[in-house]
Amino acid sequence: MSRFLIDNLQYCNWSEKIFRQLRESEVDAIHVTVAYHQGFREMVSSLESWNRHFESYAKYILRGLTGDHVRQAKEQGKTAVFFGLQNPGPIEDDLGLVEICCQLGIRFMQLSYNNQSLLASGVHEPEDRGLTRFGREVVNEMNRVGLVVDMSHSSERSTIEAIHHSNRPIAITHANPYLWEPSVRNKSDSVLRELVQSGGMLGFSLYPNHLKNGTDCSLTGFCEMVAETVSRHGIENFGFGSDLCQDQPDEVVEWMRFGLWSKRPHKGAENAPAFPPMPNWFRDNRDWKNIRNGLQSVGFSTDEIDKIMGGNWLKFYDENFGPAP
Amino acid sequence: MSRFLIDNLQYCNWSEKIFRQLRESEVDAIHVTVAYHQGFREMVSSLESWNRHFESYAKYILRGLTGDHVRQAKEQGKTAVFFGLQNPGPIEDDLGLVEICCQLGIRFMQLSYNNQSLLASGVHEPEDRGLTRFGREVVNEMNRVGLVVDMSHSSERSTIEAIHHSNRPIAITHANPYLWEPSVRNKSDSVLRELVQSGGMLGFSLYPNHLKNGTDCSLTGFCEMVAETVSRHGIENFGFGSDLCQDQPDEVVEWMRFGLWSKRPHKGAENAPAFPPMPNWFRDNRDWKNIRNGLQSVGFSTDEIDKIMGGNWLKFYDENFGPAP
Repeated sequence: MSRFLIDNLQYCNWSEKIFRQLRESEVDAIHVTVAYHQGFREMVSSLESWNRHFESYAKYILRGLTGDHVRQAKEQGKTAVFFGLQNPGPIEDDLGLVEICCQLGIRFMQLSYNNQSLLASGVHEPEDRGLTRFGREVVNEMNRVGLVVDMSHSSERSTIEAIHHSNRPIAITHANPYLWEPSVRNKSDSVLRELVQSGGMLGFSLYPNHLKNGTDCSLTGFCEMVAETVSRHGIENFGFGSDLCQDQPDEVVEWMRFGLWSKRPHKGAENAPAFPPMPNWFRDNRDWKNIRNGLQSVGFSTDEIDKIMGGNWLKFYDENFGPAP
Repeated sequence: MSRFLIDNLQYCNWSEKIFRQLRESEVDAIHVTVAYHQGFREMVSSLESWNRHFESYAKYILRGLTGDHVRQAKEQGKTAVFFGLQNPGPIEDDLGLVEICCQLGIRFMQLSYNNQSLLASGVHEPEDRGLTRFGREVVNEMNRVGLVVDMSHSSERSTIEAIHHSNRPIAITHANPYLWEPSVRNKSDSVLRELVQSGGMLGFSLYPNHLKNGTDCSLTGFCEMVAETVSRHGIENFGFGSDLCQDQPDEVVEWMRFGLWSKRPHKGAENAPAFPPMPNWFRDNRDWKNIRNGLQSVGFSTDEIDKIMGGNWLKFYDENFGPAP
């Protein structure tokens, strides 16, 4: 197997600089967020911006729709960009928009983002109500057309119900084990067990809020967590979803948290959210080599590292993008 | 060359009956209108309905995106359905929506429908203002992504300017020669000459308002018109675009004419528009065999008939759907 490098979650303030860094770092594919709190038409505007990027920066990036686009990107020295939604707002209350989103290139959709959605509960919601009636219909439709269910920001019961209800594997694109760091966004061992048993994937996150000791988390500590997780659950179902938000202003994290559903704190107010600094061993895409070295230091073989750094996601793409057989 | 049957314009009140008739008549592909006066989001709803049709009637129809889908449809005994817009309303005033529409499967777009649009003038507009600034940008973008310019309902100067400005061939999907029947919707000999010289295609219409003597037009008269047109302009650039509006209620022709831009006549009022009855030799798709026989009777060879009845459109699809080389 060729060596692939895939980061299955980024939300950067995209620019030629970042696309160039992706290529210089030989990142073969990224999954990028194209909508949080937007509706359908706003998501389409985001896709229009991406079409401009593909036209303007054709020497760095190409539009990813299938696993083969990752191989094509590698051959051409480019990065394949796959689209995902962190919230189901763009499908409105309209089941038909699931297939339309898939036809527009969306490959992952979270059923909820922190709050209750029309489909499922989010991790900040005090009560976890599980999958809704509409949620079950949407999962069926996502299964049919080949749009992957992502439960990164969804709560425990909703996640377990999604795994059980879905007849294809689901993903948790960016989170870490709760056993290692008890963040509300990290996932319990029983969720990981059910995820792996059903063929799903977890992308290890490098976002400080999901790390032990946040920004000060050590590379060795992070890689030992990867090793411990793999020793509990096997190696086949893990990859990365760094949640890299490079060059985003703090207004963007306010938007991610509050959208339009709440009055946001005024800019600069004491309680205004801010992006935490990334760990010094993972500033951005140029530091994937540090992760590779770190994994080696804690005892992973080259074959194992290749699986975790891209091979497992590529296999998942091959099997789960596209209509059900 | 295998024998293909393609009708490059229909706007029926779609039902299982019509899909079954298409297959029984071995129609390999149709180009259907998915929007007249609608905006972007309404067009998407129309595409959602078509996705339901593809799911519900998978034994009759498949979604057509490339010429190869026509071949695939023929092999599988189905009809490939290609999408088109009769008005540019769905792209709003947003150049980025051209590529989005293409990504959603739209393959033809008229630059105007009877009236002035943001892009060009229509055939009922008293003044023909030619291509607008936005119109020129849109044609460039359509050329780039592989969305075919259709000038069926556009006026003479606008049509000539579109042919000249476009760097790929354009289409007039449904109209007849003005020399034969001086309808405002039929096309002058100089338009046909420029169209053919630039590699464009005309689809002969079977809509009574475009026929000499309307509903009473004879099959022989129609086929003699085809023969005369081919003798003037060669055979390579002609096919059919029947404009079949099977099973549509008269309210639909009111909508086609008036959309929301004018107060429509009340239903049943003396001046309310109505669909004219089709000629008795072309009631619907079951009568393509009459056209074939009619063309034979006026002296066309089998090879020539195959070109006019589908081969020419298929070649055009192969060359004009998809990004510019």
